Amino acid sequence: MAICYHQSSLKLSSSYPLPNLFIPKSQSQTLTLRCKNLSSVSSSSTTLVTEPEPIFTSVKSFAPATVANLGPCFDFLGCAVDGIGDFVTLRVDPQVHPGHISISHIDGVGDSSKKLTKDPLLNCAGIAAIAVLKMLNVRSVGLSLSLHKGLPLGSGLGSSAASAAAAAVAVNEIFGGHLSVSDLVLAGLESESKVSGYHADNVAPAIMGGFVLIRSYDPLEFIQLKFPPNLEEKDLLFVLVNPEFEAPTKKMRAALPMEIPMRDHVWNCSQAGALVAAVLEGDLKGLGKALSSDRIVEPRRAPLIPGMEGVKKAAMEAGAFGCTISGAGPTLVAVTDDEEMGREIGDRMVEAFMEYGNLKASAMVKRLDRVGARLVSCIPG
Amino acid sequence: MAICYHQSSLKLSSSYPLPNLFIPKSQSQTLTLRCKNLSSVSSSSTTLVTEPEPIFTSVKSFAPATVANLGPCFDFLGCAVDGIGDFVTLRVDPQVHPGHISISHIDGVGDSSKKLTKDPLLNCAGIAAIAVLKMLNVRSVGLSLSLHKGLPLGSGLGSSAASAAAAAVAVNEIFGGHLSVSDLVLAGLESESKVSGYHADNVAPAIMGGFVLIRSYDPLEFIQLKFPPNLEEKDLLFVLVNPEFEAPTKKMRAALPMEIPMRDHVWNCSQAGALVAAVLEGDLKGLGKALSSDRIVEPRRAPLIPGMEGVKKAAMEAGAFGCTISGAGPTLVAVTDDEEMGREIGDRMVEAFMEYGNLKASAMVKRLDRVGARLVSCIPG
Repeated sequence: MAICYHQSSLKLSSSYPLPNLFIPKSQSQTLTLRCKNLSSVSSSSTTLVTEPEPIFTSVKSFAPATVANLGPCFDFLGCAVDGIGDFVTLRVDPQVHPGHISISHIDGVGDSSKKLTKDPLLNCAGIAAIAVLKMLNVRSVGLSLSLHKGLPLGSGLGSSAASAAAAAVAVNEIFGGHLSVSDLVLAGLESESKVSGYHADNVAPAIMGGFVLIRSYDPLEFIQLKFPPNLEEKDLLFVLVNPEFEAPTKKMRAALPMEIPMRDHVWNCSQAGALVAAVLEGDLKGLGKALSSDRIVEPRRAPLIPGMEGVKKAAMEAGAFGCTISGAGPTLVAVTDDEEMGREIGDRMVEAFMEYGNLKASAMVKRLDRVGARLVSCIPG
Repeated sequence: MAICYHQSSLKLSSSYPLPNLFIPKSQSQTLTLRCKNLSSVSSSSTTLVTEPEPIFTSVKSFAPATVANLGPCFDFLGCAVDGIGDFVTLRVDPQVHPGHISISHIDGVGDSSKKLTKDPLLNCAGIAAIAVLKMLNVRSVGLSLSLHKGLPLGSGLGSSAASAAAAAVAVNEIFGGHLSVSDLVLAGLESESKVSGYHADNVAPAIMGGFVLIRSYDPLEFIQLKFPPNLEEKDLLFVLVNPEFEAPTKKMRAALPMEIPMRDHVWNCSQAGALVAAVLEGDLKGLGKALSSDRIVEPRRAPLIPGMEGVKKAAMEAGAFGCTISGAGPTLVAVTDDEEMGREIGDRMVEAFMEYGNLKASAMVKRLDRVGARLVSCIPG
């Protein structure tokens, strides 16, 4: 399988296989420039007039895991984490009805392949792929799609968004990358709305990388918050601790209050502002502090994750700058700036999950993904 | 009266009289550096062990008007506006009981001098001055204070905060500037809590200049949001339109809802995040848009300001990037980047106040004050 570069809105960032998904600085900067132009986006979807032809016979794409909600930023802010996510392999397939998608294969971690449907109208990757096909006005080419899940389902790491993002990018790129990032986010949102809820705070960072603030849905508007380059060899590190426990998004949503006292609203609003400022200024301690400060959602959801309170305490005692629930959980996310300390924090959190929640858990330490969904390989047509 | 410079935490920024309070860039940068070190402050108040001696026999200070709330940033974000504010003249006075403050004179716009008490325990300037005297541990020197109000009372422009900030800075500076900015904010907050409510979103920017986000009160923590230098000759301009109408803070507070629906909370939170991002990135259109987007406070308070809806509409039609209530009103604030357009927007808003609210109003176009409370003159001891 060849490595190839071509001119489109998304850059090819690595070859397949990917032993290490960390993106070299120069490529990150390229993407930062691209994202700078798109830092505040208001959009409605594109539909091409002329049907494009595929420029590859096959492509493979990757989209990263994402951490949404981020404490006080419930439902409007998320970020991408490097080195873990979903892969989509897409190929032009004369066996597939023109203008259609067929999902040929699903595999990956856990029992994803058993739980996920291959019906493209119901599968998150399939829905996003079809949305992009429609925007591109593709009617003459059929595609078969293979999905490799690197993310467990229902973990709070944006599993469905990663599949949707990888699929959207793969379809766009196989036809030459005519769509904008905002089109791809719209396609991803179409998938999310059918599978997990009408929210873009996972799928936008899964596609764009970095931190993305969703400003409105009608029209869809989002702002990429540019996290500055690493300072003094300190890096933003996420400690992600995933217990063996299923916390369905719907149940976690049902725990939310309908009404918020004014004082809590003002508090969370100010912490959300502080978090945005910390991101833009690269203030890791400030980011952690804000992340930890939610008084509205976390207090309601924490009791649904056995041991959560003790695990958060253990993370803070081990030196984390902050800790909260990732997405709708049950994964917890802590923030630090040192890899060794990150591993130590992760170990303490895993122990605490056993001690306070009687749950097995696994920890990983990840960097911010500044790139988002990308091609990882392609075979020219 | 001499102009003099001395080493303290606050720089002397202009001579008295002040025909133009716009601060030269170099001084603004000096203050930006100072503020950079203080960009995130957590504090409890200082009390000096050794009583300092006055280094001046008299000082004159200025503190700017402030716009608090800023749409979705209710109760936690404010900014200072250049060229309008209150003056305090302070002198060492052997006639005044040592360790005490006497308010000798109050004058200024409107009927401020009639409405304000000269009792230093009840006057906002007096309370802040006494708080600073206590922090400095001054027991041997009496001071007399003269207050010149440049701001009308109850206008929504931080009138009490400007008096408190000017007084706090004057007392600190006459004794050599031993206190930190955070001490001065604490002194100002003590005054605000007795006179207008326990909130620092006026007094912190009145003391520090620029945009200040109040992150918490226990302990007091605030973040100075560094608005970038002007780009491409475009400047952040505030159009302030003050109708002849009194909107008492208490009545405006009573209009607030006790409980906020979750969807409005998420919306306002995301707009607050967008506003913070716009400030830090110098995105004037984004700032205006966020300013205009409040769905919680403005809809409740707007009906209490006759004509408000029509005035906001007139501002937007005249090209403002955004418009909302300044503080608790009745002054409205609109944002633009062009001085001539700012005057045009102001004229349209004044007309609309008459048309829709049957209220006379006056408009002014002001820049961001990046300096905050400062000495304007002093007489060495």
